[in-house]
Amino acid sequence: MKKQIKLGLLALTGGVMLASAAHANNFKEVDDAIEYRQSAFGLIAHNFGDMGAMLKGEKPFDAEVFAMRAQNVAALSQLPAEGFVAGSDKGNTEALAKIWSDKADFDSKMSEFQDNAAKLAVAAQSDDNNALKAAFMATGKSCKGCHDVYKKD
Amino acid sequence: MKKQIKLGLLALTGGVMLASAAHANNFKEVDDAIEYRQSAFGLIAHNFGDMGAMLKGEKPFDAEVFAMRAQNVAALSQLPAEGFVAGSDKGNTEALAKIWSDKADFDSKMSEFQDNAAKLAVAAQSDDNNALKAAFMATGKSCKGCHDVYKKD
Repeated sequence: MKKQIKLGLLALTGGVMLASAAHANNFKEVDDAIEYRQSAFGLIAHNFGDMGAMLKGEKPFDAEVFAMRAQNVAALSQLPAEGFVAGSDKGNTEALAKIWSDKADFDSKMSEFQDNAAKLAVAAQSDDNNALKAAFMATGKSCKGCHDVYKKD
Repeated sequence: MKKQIKLGLLALTGGVMLASAAHANNFKEVDDAIEYRQSAFGLIAHNFGDMGAMLKGEKPFDAEVFAMRAQNVAALSQLPAEGFVAGSDKGNTEALAKIWSDKADFDSKMSEFQDNAAKLAVAAQSDDNNALKAAFMATGKSCKGCHDVYKKD
């Protein structure tokens, strides 16, 4: 019930609906939430890293694989938010407590990352290599921009 | 190069292109491949489990969240295959060596799971609760069918 009200409010205020905002804490333990977001970030890093290797010429560029990677990153970008539950700055994590004290900014950065990942998935379908590289750089910048502020060194 | 030939062959033979077949081993260590597939399965379990909780009435059914979960599972279903690299039956894993000695059957079961997850994502968009439940059950059956044969008890 509470969940639906929250969704309604988000719709009314035009707020960006993050996966984390769409439902209450669905994890039994805080550690499960930490593992969840870390799993998602790990999968993102692998897919994004492979795209980077292709763009840097460390391996041959394969448009089909690149597009598949971009699609994976876009889908995966929706997942980590759910794992940032209250209290999960404690435990086996590099997440800083600042995430929760400055949640609106964190959510906005997460949303920007999701938008850039979605744009990258679209750009990866095109033949425009410059657009593709720009979209890749923008997504990488989203990652770094958030890590710089909200992740332990 | 080898990769592109493999893709071509798959297209020619009409074989189902699994993520794992689309590229060579992209992991530095076998352990990374194991962690990759386990991360994907963990995320799948969380999303699928939440859908199950809704269908069992353990929590209120929320069509929007259910559809989002189904979408996540469909996207995530594409990921684990890549992690089943040769030699990764050894290590911190419950995967049986049988996976690699009976690879064609394993790949076919993985493909069936991906198909069922995709159908579930479509069914979750509709208002047909029976279709949705049937699609959920079929997907769960795919999970179990593969675990029964290829995963340690």
